[in-house]
Amino acid sequence: MYTKKVMDHFTNPRNMGEIENPSGVGTVGNAKCGDIMRMYLDIDDNGVIRDVKFKTFGCGAAVATSSMATELIKGKTIEEALKVTNKAVMEALDGLPPVKVHCSLLAEEAIHAALWDYAEKK
Amino acid sequence: MYTKKVMDHFTNPRNMGEIENPSGVGTVGNAKCGDIMRMYLDIDDNGVIRDVKFKTFGCGAAVATSSMATELIKGKTIEEALKVTNKAVMEALDGLPPVKVHCSLLAEEAIHAALWDYAEKK
Ligand code: FES
Repeated sequence: MYTKKVMDHFTNPRNMGEIENPSGVGTVGNAKCGDIMRMYLDIDDNGVIRDVKFKTFGCGAAVATSSMATELIKGKTIEEALKVTNKAVMEALDGLPPVKVHCSLLAEEAIHAALWDYAEKK
Repeated sequence: MYTKKVMDHFTNPRNMGEIENPSGVGTVGNAKCGDIMRMYLDIDDNGVIRDVKFKTFGCGAAVATSSMATELIKGKTIEEALKVTNKAVMEALDGLPPVKVHCSLLAEEAIHAALWDYAEKK
């Protein structure tokens, strides 16, 4: 049912946790399953994402897609990060079962919410 | 949104893992969210559940309810374990949000499936 990469990121998630005094924080919920996700960003003066961490109550698919999403945006500029869609994350994981596609939206939406929070603070 | 007990069992789950050569194994899926759960039982000659472990790809509510369910059936007889419903597990956790009640069914169904597997083997 799940690819090797999904199982890898689920059992050994990257960048799980919190950032103290983050540049931006985004919290989103998934109406379909009731799960929640929070994304923390640390952004430097050049608009580069220096660090990113996430926390979720969501399922294995939410954990795996968030883990992969954080890897894809770490070290990138805000503009580049905005181009990392849930589709790109799923491709990087070699796919997700159709019933779990909605879980991958949590990461994308939480990143957007955190970038929005950063922009508003600036 | 979540009670203290739910957060405790989610962040520090009890009896997560596998049992080698279990007396019974049950694997179930949740049609509503596509999540899966596996429960392993070690049952002694007197029909007492000596050990129980679970693994899930499900969300935080699935983790918390499974963790609590394993605590409730460990050391109990098969007859007693069969009486541990998802309602009893949710009460032991001081409740779950309505949108997450379906997640608590995974543990109950996986326990029943594992007991069924044990009975078939005997
Ligand atoms: S949403 Fe699938 S187990 Fe909770």
